[in-house]
Amino acid sequence: MEPLLSQSRRLCPFLKKTSPSTLRALSTGVSPSVGGGTMSNLQVVARRCPVMSKALAVQSVRNSAFSTFGARAGIAGQKRGYVVPSKPAGFQATERKDAEAASIETLHLQAGVLDTSKGICPHGAAALKAAQIAESMAAAPRARPTRPVNVAPVKMNPATTTGTAFDYEGFYNNEIEKKLKDKSYRYFNNINRLAKDFPQAHLDTPDKLVTAWCSNDYLGMGRNPNVLKAMHETLDTYGAGAGGTRNISGHNKHAIGLERTIAKLHAKPAALVFSSCYVANDATLATMGSKLPNCVILSDSLNHASMIQGIRHSGAKKLVFKHNDLKDLEEKLQSIPANYPKIIAFESVYSMCGSVGPIKEICDLAEKYGAITFLDEVHAVGMYGPHGAGVAEHLDFEAHAAGRPEGTVMDRIDIITGTLGKAYGCVGGYIAGSSLFVDMIRSLAPGFIFTTSLPPATMAGADAAIDYQMHYHGDRRLQQLHTRAVKESLQDRDIPVIPNPSHIVPILVGSAELARQASDSLLEDHGIYVQAINYPTVPVGQERLRITPTPGHTEKYRTHLIEALETVWNDLGIKRTSDWRAEGGLCGVGVDDVKVENIWTDEQLGFQGKKFVEKAISMKTGRATGPVMDAILEKEMGRPMGIEA
Amino acid sequence: MEPLLSQSRRLCPFLKKTSPSTLRALSTGVSPSVGGGTMSNLQVVARRCPVMSKALAVQSVRNSAFSTFGARAGIAGQKRGYVVPSKPAGFQATERKDAEAASIETLHLQAGVLDTSKGICPHGAAALKAAQIAESMAAAPRARPTRPVNVAPVKMNPATTTGTAFDYEGFYNNEIEKKLKDKSYRYFNNINRLAKDFPQAHLDTPDKLVTAWCSNDYLGMGRNPNVLKAMHETLDTYGAGAGGTRNISGHNKHAIGLERTIAKLHAKPAALVFSSCYVANDATLATMGSKLPNCVILSDSLNHASMIQGIRHSGAKKLVFKHNDLKDLEEKLQSIPANYPKIIAFESVYSMCGSVGPIKEICDLAEKYGAITFLDEVHAVGMYGPHGAGVAEHLDFEAHAAGRPEGTVMDRIDIITGTLGKAYGCVGGYIAGSSLFVDMIRSLAPGFIFTTSLPPATMAGADAAIDYQMHYHGDRRLQQLHTRAVKESLQDRDIPVIPNPSHIVPILVGSAELARQASDSLLEDHGIYVQAINYPTVPVGQERLRITPTPGHTEKYRTHLIEALETVWNDLGIKRTSDWRAEGGLCGVGVDDVKVENIWTDEQLGFQGKKFVEKAISMKTGRATGPVMDAILEKEMGRPMGIEA
Repeated sequence: MEPLLSQSRRLCPFLKKTSPSTLRALSTGVSPSVGGGTMSNLQVVARRCPVMSKALAVQSVRNSAFSTFGARAGIAGQKRGYVVPSKPAGFQATERKDAEAASIETLHLQAGVLDTSKGICPHGAAALKAAQIAESMAAAPRARPTRPVNVAPVKMNPATTTGTAFDYEGFYNNEIEKKLKDKSYRYFNNINRLAKDFPQAHLDTPDKLVTAWCSNDYLGMGRNPNVLKAMHETLDTYGAGAGGTRNISGHNKHAIGLERTIAKLHAKPAALVFSSCYVANDATLATMGSKLPNCVILSDSLNHASMIQGIRHSGAKKLVFKHNDLKDLEEKLQSIPANYPKIIAFESVYSMCGSVGPIKEICDLAEKYGAITFLDEVHAVGMYGPHGAGVAEHLDFEAHAAGRPEGTVMDRIDIITGTLGKAYGCVGGYIAGSSLFVDMIRSLAPGFIFTTSLPPATMAGADAAIDYQMHYHGDRRLQQLHTRAVKESLQDRDIPVIPNPSHIVPILVGSAELARQASDSLLEDHGIYVQAINYPTVPVGQERLRITPTPGHTEKYRTHLIEALETVWNDLGIKRTSDWRAEGGLCGVGVDDVKVENIWTDEQLGFQGKKFVEKAISMKTGRATGPVMDAILEKEMGRPMGIEA
Repeated sequence: MEPLLSQSRRLCPFLKKTSPSTLRALSTGVSPSVGGGTMSNLQVVARRCPVMSKALAVQSVRNSAFSTFGARAGIAGQKRGYVVPSKPAGFQATERKDAEAASIETLHLQAGVLDTSKGICPHGAAALKAAQIAESMAAAPRARPTRPVNVAPVKMNPATTTGTAFDYEGFYNNEIEKKLKDKSYRYFNNINRLAKDFPQAHLDTPDKLVTAWCSNDYLGMGRNPNVLKAMHETLDTYGAGAGGTRNISGHNKHAIGLERTIAKLHAKPAALVFSSCYVANDATLATMGSKLPNCVILSDSLNHASMIQGIRHSGAKKLVFKHNDLKDLEEKLQSIPANYPKIIAFESVYSMCGSVGPIKEICDLAEKYGAITFLDEVHAVGMYGPHGAGVAEHLDFEAHAAGRPEGTVMDRIDIITGTLGKAYGCVGGYIAGSSLFVDMIRSLAPGFIFTTSLPPATMAGADAAIDYQMHYHGDRRLQQLHTRAVKESLQDRDIPVIPNPSHIVPILVGSAELARQASDSLLEDHGIYVQAINYPTVPVGQERLRITPTPGHTEKYRTHLIEALETVWNDLGIKRTSDWRAEGGLCGVGVDDVKVENIWTDEQLGFQGKKFVEKAISMKTGRATGPVMDAILEKEMGRPMGIEA
């Protein structure tokens, strides 16, 4: 095999830089989910190659065609292709290599990547050979043999053989093809975030270190010693799982304690914990919308998928109002009969652009028109307000700091939903509101009733995280300062940050392909992990990188990030802010009259007089005086970066 | 207050046996979720009293009426009732005690519990006084003052004052009233299962020990040392939470490893992990049904709520076939055009009756009519089959034990779903199937895409649990033997077990009220926790206790259970099997020709010749020779009850 390998290496840049042992490891390591299916890791890599990814897709279609023809051998081949760990689907080419080779040119045409005038491209041919090599290597005995995943002959539906039955596998394949074609197919990166080296993570092996710059563990609470201690102790005393639904042996002091803490956090009478905030939003809106007679739900156009699903599942009438547009919202409220129940569903911080909902003004409208408010604070809890209860709390900072929630914006909100999986570093979601409201959801929502409770240790960890952030400001203030530093440095470099008043740093790329290339280059060339955000998460043409600074992203990490982005922007020729300005601007980038008032004011961050000027300077220049800022702030906060409790 | 207390104590059995300090603790300890809302623990207890529970309900309605009248004071009173921790809703009676007292007789009529010819019952009057006492005690300063939950004045919607706006709180209250009225309102018990004293748990305080007899931690894996070790280590290295969705920093080696293990377990090419199996079922069926053109989903009439919701959310045509009725299923399959996609959704073990789906026969029908099969193995994984893959694996025990899955029933199933939160002792759910199928769900299901991944430690724990059960039979065999012992002892006592071939022990009660009383008596008088299963989980008239023996329910626990059930059945006069037989039988109870073949055969459990006879005898007599059975079995299994790894 070696001569073939070395031949292929001359042609294929991937094979060239990858050692035979790595190739073998890649081809024998099967990942059922990376990229979907029983892909070998080699197949995952192959999907990134413009030629091989198309070859894989075409092959799938062809295999499906076999099943339509009803040829038993064809179906067996198809099934085996996705089944046998030693022969992953993408690398069974030897069995049909003639057909494969003959269609390489067609592939190129379809892929639209390479110039067909050059005939069969060397890269494509090399990839084919790589497939052969991988297959032969995979045939070698594996170090630790395991139970075979599946070596079964295929079931034969009599109906299938008549050709009349529905072709399920072909349908699945077509759906995936569509995703591949519109570039919305997702490739998951293997990111293992390290508790003791936050914000670093390792890739598939512990030696491949990268800095995570897009995690939603916004404050690093996932490695907070208080949280971990509570979890270890609870694990030892109460075990791994809850053992049942809330009604059947899954209700315990941890659930009671956590819900009490959440109610206290939001100054509401009651709270209820769900498997996730996706489930909380979905179950709550679906239940409300289906139970309230004639209910109309008014939904911000940028609302999260969980709310969209919940509204859809409710069957209630939905009116979508323009993002943060009070005029549009009021017009829609006016169109609904006064005695109909109405729910205004919106968010505080919108995660992909960092914009912030006009919470107070929406409360005014709700009260004017007899609506109730449903506020998703998922990307805000832990990070805003004197107790970390979110933006609604932040709006009356002093009143809440003094323990007087009466009449505040947060007090006026009817339903608040939040997560335990982002700034609180654990997993799970919740709702908070009136006792009767919470009791009704508790009593009626199938997504709450018929599911196993979160583990006691998870509840205990989340409880500890909320409590910690209720009593300590340092993490979220440092997060804000690091965010300001990153945003200012990027502005200085003419790199296009979508302006917003929150902790989110969205960098406009404006192309799905470029966004992915930028993400790949940051990871592979610079050891920085920032996921590309493409359609359908954001509209086509507004693709971006989404960066989330944390208290752990100190000066050395920030400098590294800024330099890497500068290089990538140059290498890939991605548009600068000035380029967007020349085109009239997009998403607020290159638009001069965009005015942003940060949620956290200078005063709330502790900037006063000379000190403030000093820090402003240090942030402007970035590298040189950055550490000074960190040091001063850490001193002010009383402990370094909130790590030690 | 003491004279009033002692006076009340003579009248009210609850007050009589409860110390003042306990009453104070109960009235000041606020549980936002126990029984819903900001109930104090005293209120939770009060809801169990036939008189007080009605008084609370009537009071709620009256408070709602105030808000309809638009009286600010009324609304404030209502809100405060559910808001202020020192004045829980049920115990603000002093404020309106005259009205309350005047309606006591009405309450009795409504409650239908007491003989009205006796006038105002002493118990009711005492309860009212207890409310006064509790209120005055609650006014005393609390030991550790915390941030007030909510002492806000109530927001006034201008529209509300005009009387035209929708009355949200009144609506919530009515929904709860309906649940109270039809006895489907749920009261959660505070159950803290102890890892080191499995299957024991403590109630609100560590000294109140009970035996958990209804947990779904079927094999005690929640306290398995392998599982806990994996979780502790992962917590320390990778922290508490995943920090993002699978696409954004939440995909890691633990997810990859767990999905590989699950695929291996079910001998499928691929698997995908979700927050829960509720979400897995819901998201998968909703996606399949909405994407497949003209899709028809055939659903067993006893399917779990998660499947019912998923089918509903899909918008696809649904045909419900009679539980386990192959003839009905075939007729419905025949009614659908051959080229339409069809999904047969069903379960292996139905959790509330313990019945088992005819998996092989459904596969036959699916193949005959070109349908695909969706099998929920939630109540079977870990407990059936040589590797614990479920009932589908169990049906070809020898083939799977020998590592030959080809052509088996499990191999023929298209989609298997399972949980990590029951027999595997953790939390989470999954699907397993073809690579293309899994990749499509991964790419399209919002419930998978837009939610935070399970924590690395949870994934590691679940992976360890599956792996452990793949290599060790002892726990599930012991579970089966304990189940047989319980069923046989109950049969000997004429206590009505609904016959079934699985590990579930459903005991027929046939009345919601009696089932709850039996459950309460078991907990309060015998220290045994068995939740009552009422409508809507089971049909009205088929209410039951659902008992789930585990490997930890050794002879002393079983004897205690049987004796307690005997006492409760006598005390409450609950029907015996012979009573049901006299009425013609129900749910297979008292029906003589019901033939049950256990999933685990005698041979698979290791019964052979004399040994089998010995064990059969020991099971028959229960107490005397039970320990012998446990000892022999534990010896055979190689380690005691699977606790030590």
